[in-house]
Amino acid sequence: MTADDDNEQSGRRPRPERSQFSLRTARMEAFSDGVFAIAITLLVLEIAVPAATEKHIGHALLEQWPIYLAYFVSFASIGNAWLNHSLITEYLNRTDSILLRLNLLLLLFVSILPFPTKMISTYLHNVTAERVSVVLYGCNLLAIAGLTGVIWHYAVSEQLVRRDADDDELRALAGKIDPSLISYAVAIGVGLLFPRAGVALFLAIAVYLLIPYRAIIRWFRRHRHA
Amino acid sequence: MTADDDNEQSGRRPRPERSQFSLRTARMEAFSDGVFAIAITLLVLEIAVPAATEKHIGHALLEQWPIYLAYFVSFASIGNAWLNHSLITEYLNRTDSILLRLNLLLLLFVSILPFPTKMISTYLHNVTAERVSVVLYGCNLLAIAGLTGVIWHYAVSEQLVRRDADDDELRALAGKIDPSLISYAVAIGVGLLFPRAGVALFLAIAVYLLIPYRAIIRWFRRHRHA
Amino acid sequence: MTADDDNEQSGRRPRPERSQFSLRTARMEAFSDGVFAIAITLLVLEIAVPAATEKHIGHALLEQWPIYLAYFVSFASIGNAWLNHSLITEYLNRTDSILLRLNLLLLLFVSILPFPTKMISTYLHNVTAERVSVVLYGCNLLAIAGLTGVIWHYAVSEQLVRRDADDDELRALAGKIDPSLISYAVAIGVGLLFPRAGVALFLAIAVYLLIPYRAIIRWFRRHRHA
Amino acid sequence: MTADDDNEQSGRRPRPERSQFSLRTARMEAFSDGVFAIAITLLVLEIAVPAATEKHIGHALLEQWPIYLAYFVSFASIGNAWLNHSLITEYLNRTDSILLRLNLLLLLFVSILPFPTKMISTYLHNVTAERVSVVLYGCNLLAIAGLTGVIWHYAVSEQLVRRDADDDELRALAGKIDPSLISYAVAIGVGLLFPRAGVALFLAIAVYLLIPYRAIIRWFRRHRHA
Repeated sequence: MTADDDNEQSGRRPRPERSQFSLRTARMEAFSDGVFAIAITLLVLEIAVPAATEKHIGHALLEQWPIYLAYFVSFASIGNAWLNHSLITEYLNRTDSILLRLNLLLLLFVSILPFPTKMISTYLHNVTAERVSVVLYGCNLLAIAGLTGVIWHYAVSEQLVRRDADDDELRALAGKIDPSLISYAVAIGVGLLFPRAGVALFLAIAVYLLIPYRAIIRWFRRHRHA
Repeated sequence: MTADDDNEQSGRRPRPERSQFSLRTARMEAFSDGVFAIAITLLVLEIAVPAATEKHIGHALLEQWPIYLAYFVSFASIGNAWLNHSLITEYLNRTDSILLRLNLLLLLFVSILPFPTKMISTYLHNVTAERVSVVLYGCNLLAIAGLTGVIWHYAVSEQLVRRDADDDELRALAGKIDPSLISYAVAIGVGLLFPRAGVALFLAIAVYLLIPYRAIIRWFRRHRHA
Repeated sequence: MTADDDNEQSGRRPRPERSQFSLRTARMEAFSDGVFAIAITLLVLEIAVPAATEKHIGHALLEQWPIYLAYFVSFASIGNAWLNHSLITEYLNRTDSILLRLNLLLLLFVSILPFPTKMISTYLHNVTAERVSVVLYGCNLLAIAGLTGVIWHYAVSEQLVRRDADDDELRALAGKIDPSLISYAVAIGVGLLFPRAGVALFLAIAVYLLIPYRAIIRWFRRHRHA
Repeated sequence: MTADDDNEQSGRRPRPERSQFSLRTARMEAFSDGVFAIAITLLVLEIAVPAATEKHIGHALLEQWPIYLAYFVSFASIGNAWLNHSLITEYLNRTDSILLRLNLLLLLFVSILPFPTKMISTYLHNVTAERVSVVLYGCNLLAIAGLTGVIWHYAVSEQLVRRDADDDELRALAGKIDPSLISYAVAIGVGLLFPRAGVALFLAIAVYLLIPYRAIIRWFRRHRHA
């Protein structure tokens, strides 16, 4: 069911009993911002400073590159989840008890992401353990993307979204979530066979989702005409 | 004293001296959201990545299942406390100095919950220690639920609640807190005899409190008619 | 200079150049709430779960009572600092560049409090080290109380406070800060001679400052007449 | 391109297509405040309490002075970045998808600063490692200052800034960022040759940027006339 379908339905069928159970979104936004901000900032605690004994410190630092990679992928993934979440609440008028619980479930998967991140950093030299970590990590990212989609579709179908919202970015949001689910599933499959290629794919997906192509194209178009 | 009793009283007895000592709720909400968000996100730091030496990593991960259980029970309990707290502030117009202190006391018990959670994870293989941990953990949950109830009843009796608030969910909130106190007391008693059964009961209570039955029933009713 | 002196002055001497450099208080409040919330919640990370080897776990838990005491004193002190801070911003209309820096200095001392708290927990069995820790801890509390006072007097003297603010609680705030500075100085002196008596005094001061006597008296007076 | 240039251009060339993709700044502010607050408060976790064995605790505490220095420089640098960020959002009307990503990149460098801070504390007695740490630390500060400048210039050039904003402090902001970039580059060069002199320079820059000279001069001028 798309947003357009639902807006049509809402024209036919008023639901006066709904509004009385809906709540302000202020605290849901503040609590979510807190969890996103803490999860994204806690990641740095996992980067250990290497002991600088006989080796040159530069080598010791470079040798732990997969830790930086895992850090960056997790930062980009949580950052991307936050962007989608803030886009959703931008168009959200009110929330209700089901949406609050779905949001809590999303935050569960956001706040647990530092754990598989730590697993990937720990199991660098153990192929089997690395494989398990990468698959768990991918499932965590898949759960975050999937729940973001569920929250969005629920909000639209329950008319918790502002009436004046018929934006390109809204369609871009819906158009980003579904393909990202497929990409994560593919990356998990790749990670099962080649763990490091899986991590590279998670990075590629996060970076792809973060780059605002439409906005950049508009920006160039405007500045070319200037 | 119920909310209805108090609303009747307020019709009879105006209290002009009250409003001048009341405060905005914005900072109380923001500070509480911060503490809830940090307490719920810090829990993940307690989940240690198992050393992947001789054993298969899958077994090592599965063996520490009680740590995941404790994590999930604490996440659900803090999540539930946050939901109740945000429901209270949804109906709160103003706060006063007593309510701010009661709220601080609630946050004390919310922010200390990671300690008994860590105890349960640590004392897996020591029956006596496990018993003490489960009882302490249950008392912590009982204190959170009890203080939430005290805050709610104080806010209603001091008329800090919006006048237009006569909602089903409000009654649902009051109707949830008192039975949850009894459930926690029962679960603590069970945990004194059978620690793991106590933890299972804490999980059952948290999940029961989290599921929005009324909202789900309304949702089904609406969609059946659609 | 008291708030009343200054309000008189402001009637004589308008300062049109001030308003154009003043800023909204929203971000100062949100950032401060974040720092207060994190500092108060991080304290729990310092409470180690005792190893439950030969001894009964109950004894092992009770033996580390000074850690709980230090935890509780720090929680109460940060909680009290937050209450004063939120009372100040309740009456604050605008902020300016000097107030923002004074606030940052206050947050420096709030966010560093977990360090002397950890020192007190660590140096339980070393009298000299305990003495140094308690004095440092007291100086930290003194700096927090002192800077809160400086912020309040600066805000009043620069007319950043709402004009309609002439409340009893405002006078109560100013009337609480100055005596608390003297109390902290006395407690530091006592802590230099008898460290544990110093900690007990810090606890007494924090609890004394937290209890809202006037509000409780008003509450009893109202409920006696009811 | 300066802010003035751009304001002239905007008079000539209306861009109606822009506003429809712009978003509220509330969540960007709240999320950023969270990350800044956590990064600035996490720093204290890196200050270890020294073991008080044979030596006097006072000596043991004083011996780790470079850790306090690194703590203070990082606190002042993040504090300064937050002040600039809050000044930018003070004048920001709306945000867009590019600005949100630039902000996320800034937060990446803010949240990673505890890592080079920890490196400086760890490599006190190893000259080569100290040199590498100081250069990395300086590059991190440079990235924060540079991205703050990029965000500000982007916001001005895309007219996301309030129209009524033509303040002295705005010019002061732009006038602070560019010289700070040069200062950081010089301090990195010095740190490559003399690591500790580099850290001293980072401290000097942070303190210089934090002191609100104009506001202090205005304050003295007003109080001299009083």
